[in-house]
Amino acid sequence: MSSLSSPDPGDARRGVALLGAAGSIGGQAVEVLAAHPELFHVVALATRSNGALLQEQAERLSAEVALLAPSEADLVDVATRDDVDLVVVATGGIVSLRPVVAALQAGKVVATANKETLVAGGHLVMPEARRSAAAVGEKRPDDAYASPLAWLRPIDSEHSALWQCLVGESMATVDALILTASGGPFLDVARDQLALVTADEALKHPTWSMGAKITIDSATLANKGLEVIEAHWLYDVEYDAIEVVIHPQSVVHSAVRFVDGSLKAQMGTPDMRLPIQYAMTYPDRRSSPAAAPDLISTGRLDFRRPDTERFPALRIAREAGIAGPWASAALIAADDVAVERFLAGSLDFLGIPRLLEDAVERFGSGSGEPDIDALIALDADVRATYANGSIGGIA
Amino acid sequence: MSSLSSPDPGDARRGVALLGAAGSIGGQAVEVLAAHPELFHVVALATRSNGALLQEQAERLSAEVALLAPSEADLVDVATRDDVDLVVVATGGIVSLRPVVAALQAGKVVATANKETLVAGGHLVMPEARRSAAAVGEKRPDDAYASPLAWLRPIDSEHSALWQCLVGESMATVDALILTASGGPFLDVARDQLALVTADEALKHPTWSMGAKITIDSATLANKGLEVIEAHWLYDVEYDAIEVVIHPQSVVHSAVRFVDGSLKAQMGTPDMRLPIQYAMTYPDRRSSPAAAPDLISTGRLDFRRPDTERFPALRIAREAGIAGPWASAALIAADDVAVERFLAGSLDFLGIPRLLEDAVERFGSGSGEPDIDALIALDADVRATYANGSIGGIA
Repeated sequence: MSSLSSPDPGDARRGVALLGAAGSIGGQAVEVLAAHPELFHVVALATRSNGALLQEQAERLSAEVALLAPSEADLVDVATRDDVDLVVVATGGIVSLRPVVAALQAGKVVATANKETLVAGGHLVMPEARRSAAAVGEKRPDDAYASPLAWLRPIDSEHSALWQCLVGESMATVDALILTASGGPFLDVARDQLALVTADEALKHPTWSMGAKITIDSATLANKGLEVIEAHWLYDVEYDAIEVVIHPQSVVHSAVRFVDGSLKAQMGTPDMRLPIQYAMTYPDRRSSPAAAPDLISTGRLDFRRPDTERFPALRIAREAGIAGPWASAALIAADDVAVERFLAGSLDFLGIPRLLEDAVERFGSGSGEPDIDALIALDADVRATYANGSIGGIA
Repeated sequence: MSSLSSPDPGDARRGVALLGAAGSIGGQAVEVLAAHPELFHVVALATRSNGALLQEQAERLSAEVALLAPSEADLVDVATRDDVDLVVVATGGIVSLRPVVAALQAGKVVATANKETLVAGGHLVMPEARRSAAAVGEKRPDDAYASPLAWLRPIDSEHSALWQCLVGESMATVDALILTASGGPFLDVARDQLALVTADEALKHPTWSMGAKITIDSATLANKGLEVIEAHWLYDVEYDAIEVVIHPQSVVHSAVRFVDGSLKAQMGTPDMRLPIQYAMTYPDRRSSPAAAPDLISTGRLDFRRPDTERFPALRIAREAGIAGPWASAALIAADDVAVERFLAGSLDFLGIPRLLEDAVERFGSGSGEPDIDALIALDADVRATYANGSIGGIA
């Protein structure tokens, strides 16, 4: 995997560019990189803000380049450097799409926690990943790199779980993908009470300690809806074969059902370092700071059907996915605004799905498939539309 | 996989010999064969008794040969026929060992539900499976047949589960194998009450409908102990990395923990047709009459630590495995006698582990590694010793 322009010609380690190093996922990716200097040579770190942390990380990892507040063009340059083999994308927002496409086109491996990559840009990135896989598969059909997942690797714990369950299996034998959802802090809160829940209450996730945005998305189930769309693109599986199951303990991270009646599940503790590392070491596994789940001390795992009456964002997202890239791109931009407004107190909890539904209806029916420029413009339109005030009956 | 001497030269189906067709596993293997005439050409069926059923099965499957009450030599002949590619072993007892070794030596794939194959003969059969795998691996390292498991395939649901979790993974990344056990009908029965349980009570298995022998073994946990020994041989994993977890619902059939903290579990309904079919179609999966488990309607999965005070057979078996092939061969022969006597009413439930421990102590310290003849002689000695009367303080 080492490129020819690697600073030490004898260096067999992978050259890594980490975009979004200062965020929650980025910081954990730094820990994984620091734990495995024998595997990774850190070429570049980039972050939008927090220069002090960036400098500390760059020194810790002996990174060659540290980019503060990079432009989209800077990110593309870093992601396509000759000495970079693996691009880890821990940035949020549509801004990551062009660097991801460019990296894939340049033959890099991309490990991504960025949801826009697939929710908005699945139709753009997956053909690139498939092209890289096909080039390997022609020569070595059984090679781990003959799979598009080897080139566009999910960091999300649910998609990592599906991926781990699919390793060594043929996609033709998959009957359904089963995404698990904790159900969030309001799993048992009645609908009329949901209107009254506060940002502070929503930020208390029962099982995972994550960033604010994803924690609110987990409370509305919008997160699971976005993951349904990501799974559709990543695994090339139709929507009616992607199921969601509520699993309050968050031990089973997701599961795959096969045509012969077998079901494989991946389990883990709520520690993102495991899926981050897997995305970086695939097809190998290495020891990790993440503890393994102990079934005996866990004792009990529960499963139930999600309630899309109380948590309509799951239904809205699935419908947006089926409607296509314009609708799902509108959805994910709208969700960003909706959560910001909820956190700021200018939208109530039930207003989040109302805003999502409005955005999908209003912006979701563009013709043809949007290219990167169109997706960036759509994202800006949605944000401008919903940033302030009362729109479409929304508080 | 089709051999050159296949009756129809254009026939790409695998030639199958099924040993033990009339038993519980054998009957279900017949159903799998009948469901997939496009994959399998049934060369031979063999069974110790029940000629009427054998004839019916042979007609249903258009088997070329039907053997009633075959000798060991007959089984070896059938298992090594030129037109046989896959030998399915559904027979009980040490009598299956020589045909299995012969089949592997002849380059056949063996799918086995026979516990003696590995518990008593693991040191004899695994080198043969590894030799077949290595011959493929030299030419095609990533081929599914480069694994010894492709050549000696487990039919047991637990070992099938481990195998399915290991597909596409490197054994070097395995931290532990986790065998699940239902705990049987006496999971919550106090020790002093266990002395009084009857054969009828023990035969009421909570989750699986199986033969009498394996149902009693499940109640004593001897079955799980034998599976620990089988797992040691099949997966070449040390005993301290093989764990047992009580899981009363029997939905998780077993799990593998990896060095990175990830845990993969295979789940299924209690239907042996799934693991039987998987052993026959690996590395492919085909649609199967076995229903998939529904996590939502199952609702809840429980896990707890096994109690080796009340169920000492688990401890005795693990110690026998560690002691080596003489001890584990003595154990499995003794268990057969102990269960027969319990079913006949001449041994109480707690007498089963006492008999096992006595047999392992008395017969388990032969020197060197026993060959097939020595294993058959040991089996006969143990049976003769414990068949009747009061021995070593046993009722």
